[in-house]
Amino acid sequence: MPRITDVRVTPIAFRDPPLLNAMGIHEPYALRSIIEVDVEGGVTGLGESYGDERFLHPMQAIAPRLKGMEVLDVNGLRRVVAEVAKDKPEADNPFFRRGNERIEARLVGAFEVAMMDAFGKGTDTRLCDLLGGAVRQSVPFSAYLFFKKGRHIDRPDLEDEWGEVITPEQLVGEAKRMCGAYGFGSIKLKAGAFPPEQEIEALEAVGEAFPGTPLRIDPNGNWHVHTTIRLLPRLEPLLEYLEDPTFSIPAMGLIQNATSLPLATNMCTVAFAHFPETIRLGAVRIVLADHHYWGGLRATADLARICDTWGLGLSMHSNSHMGISLMAMTHAAAATPNLTYACDTHYPWQTEEVIEGGRVRFEQGSVTLPDGPGLGVTLDKDALARLHEQYTTCGIRKRDDGHQMQKYEPGWSPIRPRY
Amino acid sequence: MPRITDVRVTPIAFRDPPLLNAMGIHEPYALRSIIEVDVEGGVTGLGESYGDERFLHPMQAIAPRLKGMEVLDVNGLRRVVAEVAKDKPEADNPFFRRGNERIEARLVGAFEVAMMDAFGKGTDTRLCDLLGGAVRQSVPFSAYLFFKKGRHIDRPDLEDEWGEVITPEQLVGEAKRMCGAYGFGSIKLKAGAFPPEQEIEALEAVGEAFPGTPLRIDPNGNWHVHTTIRLLPRLEPLLEYLEDPTFSIPAMGLIQNATSLPLATNMCTVAFAHFPETIRLGAVRIVLADHHYWGGLRATADLARICDTWGLGLSMHSNSHMGISLMAMTHAAAATPNLTYACDTHYPWQTEEVIEGGRVRFEQGSVTLPDGPGLGVTLDKDALARLHEQYTTCGIRKRDDGHQMQKYEPGWSPIRPRY
Repeated sequence: MPRITDVRVTPIAFRDPPLLNAMGIHEPYALRSIIEVDVEGGVTGLGESYGDERFLHPMQAIAPRLKGMEVLDVNGLRRVVAEVAKDKPEADNPFFRRGNERIEARLVGAFEVAMMDAFGKGTDTRLCDLLGGAVRQSVPFSAYLFFKKGRHIDRPDLEDEWGEVITPEQLVGEAKRMCGAYGFGSIKLKAGAFPPEQEIEALEAVGEAFPGTPLRIDPNGNWHVHTTIRLLPRLEPLLEYLEDPTFSIPAMGLIQNATSLPLATNMCTVAFAHFPETIRLGAVRIVLADHHYWGGLRATADLARICDTWGLGLSMHSNSHMGISLMAMTHAAAATPNLTYACDTHYPWQTEEVIEGGRVRFEQGSVTLPDGPGLGVTLDKDALARLHEQYTTCGIRKRDDGHQMQKYEPGWSPIRPRY
Repeated sequence: MPRITDVRVTPIAFRDPPLLNAMGIHEPYALRSIIEVDVEGGVTGLGESYGDERFLHPMQAIAPRLKGMEVLDVNGLRRVVAEVAKDKPEADNPFFRRGNERIEARLVGAFEVAMMDAFGKGTDTRLCDLLGGAVRQSVPFSAYLFFKKGRHIDRPDLEDEWGEVITPEQLVGEAKRMCGAYGFGSIKLKAGAFPPEQEIEALEAVGEAFPGTPLRIDPNGNWHVHTTIRLLPRLEPLLEYLEDPTFSIPAMGLIQNATSLPLATNMCTVAFAHFPETIRLGAVRIVLADHHYWGGLRATADLARICDTWGLGLSMHSNSHMGISLMAMTHAAAATPNLTYACDTHYPWQTEEVIEGGRVRFEQGSVTLPDGPGLGVTLDKDALARLHEQYTTCGIRKRDDGHQMQKYEPGWSPIRPRY
């Protein structure tokens, strides 16, 4: 078993459009970290994870401690992460909420992918094969619609091709453009930015333009329970599923027990420790996987087994990301038989890339598993240097959509639930 | 990814002493199957599983269908098993109880180990490393005491070194002999053969002879709920855990909710589909892993995650087995952080072996992880031929402890619960 000889964590920033959500608006750049794990024999494994400074600090503390570890020793990685997390009880850090579990799982997930990629590349084995074998050779993703401003208020020079999207007509235009370019067969709307009736009206317009296409809406926990229950008669015939209308497991349970519409979550049930309460209350019917915060690819397989055991559906969550994350998501989804929903991805909103060959291609809304070993992608070192330089100069060190929103509306404050 | 070129399933029989349990008495020979998976490149992976004819038939149907499959394609194996199980709805087959889940999981487990062993041997990777890395380099096992007859009634020529064990003094002697030879630091008594008070008295005598040693008792579902609850004041101070006093999830729940003593199970919660009811009723506090029936080594990792998530303890079950199973159990346990109890093993009751190098050594009650790739053991082909010849001549095709017991006591019938 080859051992790890070096680990590098490089923060990057890439351009991101002014997308609206419950917590405010995206800043001109999104942050991410690229993980490189060198092992004996000259192979390097790749990973991609969160890029906020508060996450980079523990990552930088973990990286040197992984030297000398066997490349598949995920249990060893978990021990190192637990030690570092114990040393850094940052009480004000939202990643540390509900005990250390969330930050620990995120840190394990960040390095585990790179370690498995290195092992796969060293043994000529695809990641999906290390995860039990591909049950599908291409993985369907969903269109991810946002309401958005036409330009960043503080960087009007950074244009995007999408323009302003506020009205139903504009949202239908966005959907047509995205589905036309990528071929998506499912559509999700990030909501929670405007009053619910306004957002539902816009999604209804999308539904009329795409008859038969499964629709989802994600108000990011920004609706009251009573608001959601009042809206159910309009939502039930419209949606494939309703994601996080509200922001706690018991509140989700109140809604789920009032409707046949499946509730999905990536805000309430986001760690294994949340399952006992989720199951006891029958709080959701679909859980969103995301190897970045569930604790890696093996943890995602564990999550899939729990969902299968308790009859829950499984979908997949996404943040703004580059192609390394996209390929890890694709391998995980390909090896998970009960991941039957099209996965979320922010990928169409990004224009830059850090992997060789540039932007990943979608065909009919799906990403095809690459033939190469491990993740099947390699790092474009020039692109990495450029995006790291962009990180050092962009000035953003911590995603803060609320602070950004106050630049547009000085009186704006992040109240949740707002509606 | 190398593909499977051939799969061989060879039934074997090995000598087994006349051990008593709730369902009768062990026959002179125990049955087992040895699985060999050849892959491109000349490597052969090994597995060991059940040997009853009703299990061999679907195994023999599956084996040729695995040719051409990628060696790590466990999802592909699951598909083949599901197809074969669907073709063979043997309603009278206890392996098929509660839907096909049990037989399917057993069949997957049988081949998955051999496939992973082949991959490990081909890539110079230990099985424990493919399972997330070893958290312990040696795995503690428990002494597994049985009441027993002095000789097989139908094969008095097949002597064993243990003699008759019925009285408390004889059981203490058995414990001293077994712990002296193997160094075990935990002791389990297979019970359910005699009235509970008699068995508890014998275990109390063992406890007095081994002060401070954790004790377990396993009546194999042969006690009524009211009997068990009546005995709790005597069991609670005596035991580390109480395994399967009774034989259903709701009945276990009635007992578990009446005592602080942890109940353990390998008879009630034995498939993932049993977890929702188990959790809802708080029916047990410890679940026994066993890759042979939970569905393989990856499924064992899933089981460990479920136990960790719901705060359940994890121990490990055993049937009569050879060294291939023992090494698979050792790798699985070594890679499972929350498997904190000493594992069960029947190994001290066996005298024959099918692996090169002969009988596996225990040191201080533990088996040390071998250095070699995969399982770390290889097949002794002469021993395999000899044990297969023993299978063809021994006349046993299906374990039937009850029928065997009737040779000793013609009026005996398998009533459960008896007490």
